[in-house]
Amino acid sequence: MDELAIIERLKEIFARAGRDSDSHLKVGIGDDAAFFTPRATGVAVATDLLTEGVHFNRQWSDLYAIGRKATAANLADIFAMGVPPGYLLVAVAFDPADRESIFELAQGIADECALIGARVIGGDLSRAESLTVSMTAIGEGDAVVTRSGAQVGDSLYLAALPGRSLLGLEQLRRDLVLDSESIAFHRSPKVEYRSFLDAAESATSLCDISDGILIDAASLARSSSLSIDLESEALRAHPAFAAIADVALALEMDPLQTVLTSGEEHGPLFTAPASWKGSKAWRIGTVKARAGSLLTLDGVAIEERGFSHF
Amino acid sequence: MDELAIIERLKEIFARAGRDSDSHLKVGIGDDAAFFTPRATGVAVATDLLTEGVHFNRQWSDLYAIGRKATAANLADIFAMGVPPGYLLVAVAFDPADRESIFELAQGIADECALIGARVIGGDLSRAESLTVSMTAIGEGDAVVTRSGAQVGDSLYLAALPGRSLLGLEQLRRDLVLDSESIAFHRSPKVEYRSFLDAAESATSLCDISDGILIDAASLARSSSLSIDLESEALRAHPAFAAIADVALALEMDPLQTVLTSGEEHGPLFTAPASWKGSKAWRIGTVKARAGSLLTLDGVAIEERGFSHF
Repeated sequence: MDELAIIERLKEIFARAGRDSDSHLKVGIGDDAAFFTPRATGVAVATDLLTEGVHFNRQWSDLYAIGRKATAANLADIFAMGVPPGYLLVAVAFDPADRESIFELAQGIADECALIGARVIGGDLSRAESLTVSMTAIGEGDAVVTRSGAQVGDSLYLAALPGRSLLGLEQLRRDLVLDSESIAFHRSPKVEYRSFLDAAESATSLCDISDGILIDAASLARSSSLSIDLESEALRAHPAFAAIADVALALEMDPLQTVLTSGEEHGPLFTAPASWKGSKAWRIGTVKARAGSLLTLDGVAIEERGFSHF
Repeated sequence: MDELAIIERLKEIFARAGRDSDSHLKVGIGDDAAFFTPRATGVAVATDLLTEGVHFNRQWSDLYAIGRKATAANLADIFAMGVPPGYLLVAVAFDPADRESIFELAQGIADECALIGARVIGGDLSRAESLTVSMTAIGEGDAVVTRSGAQVGDSLYLAALPGRSLLGLEQLRRDLVLDSESIAFHRSPKVEYRSFLDAAESATSLCDISDGILIDAASLARSSSLSIDLESEALRAHPAFAAIADVALALEMDPLQTVLTSGEEHGPLFTAPASWKGSKAWRIGTVKARAGSLLTLDGVAIEERGFSHF
């Protein structure tokens, strides 16, 4: 099977996902570039590069799960601007001897795209010794919510509480199974994409929880030139905290630290006026004027730690 | 130097290239995604993934040249649609111990972008054992020229004659210097970007010569469901042929095969009506109805061989 035959099969896999007919897509897979006419006045673009051993581990996940997870991370970057992604470019470098597994990866990408009606419209194939995946997600919208709009007095909110991805990873590292749900979640997180758009309606600043609450809250604070105080009682009161704490304690991990540092979960972390009453978000902190530390937990300075890929 | 400090320095390097002020760029480097309002009714996007040992060799090129070359390849994909690229996303995975070299790479990217007023507006950084670079170029235009519009009776044209990149590569492989100009060209090709837009004004089909004349002419023929006959006399009559042939013969390489298979040169290969008189393009073949082989040379079937990265 040569490159052209691989591309034909990939086109079939990707054709099954996405919009059935799309009059805005003028040129798709197979030319020098894809070409579309945007549905809105603005276009959001974000790129991710994932390498074996850093972003994924083929001993712990199959390529289908890796495809879903990589896609989720890239789509979430666009959702985190308050805009729905519609298109994806996918570039893959892989060992040609291992080409069947590329179709598993593609199926994972296609299935994650299908959840939100996004479509792969182009990409690149190359040989390499280890697997590398690069994705670029594209969204269309008239306006976006950035990380830099938080105001003193705003509250900090999230929708889903992180924790499960780190618990799953820790079990994979220790080669034990205490809670299969969190292992499955680490391999391929179930992302509530809609929650980003709900958040964007009221958010003054917004980002995706990709590196964990501490790193991403610090990023909002830095971009907005403010401080953020996280409230441990509010975090512990989140409806999902108890189940996460149970597994964390069984693994002899600190429940609050688990929640604060688990990454690759992909949900909205955002600021909104303290008076805001969102039904699908949970208040976990307060935006304050910058005075010393970027980030505090119950008023005490806390280090930015989490799930960085660098 | 941590990730944030690296990103700050990269922002400075990229800020020096590109449009001085750009009212269409609403969100640049540093948020979850970049956001812009297109200047035209359509958007062209293309992605490339380059890995060490396949697309570049750090023993033969410094990172500045690799940055220029990678950028040229990606920008040419957008130009090959007949549209000028304005924005670039760059994702890099690299060994953190080697981070100074990332700034050399970035300077190469910025300098190549500056040639055409393009700008890096976002990206991703990750650690990895070997260097991997992924780029996504974005262009804006109201219409594009695809690979699929060639008509029976059209002629095949190119602007610059390929050959030098392969001659340069061969000297690097053999560790000798017969012609330093072609070695420099292999490390970082000088692309006549404007020639793509000139070609697009009259082209019925158009692509970039990235894999070599044979592979790319076959691609035009395949996409247009036609055959293409290349004419060796026309190729030999190109003003650049003699100089390429001299170096090829000194290296005991076949001059015509060198011209037909040299890749990574990046110039327009296109079809246009036979009656067309373009001053900056050279006629090298004829589009015929499909009868057997996709590609012929002087009427004799010829295999698609060239500079594939797969």
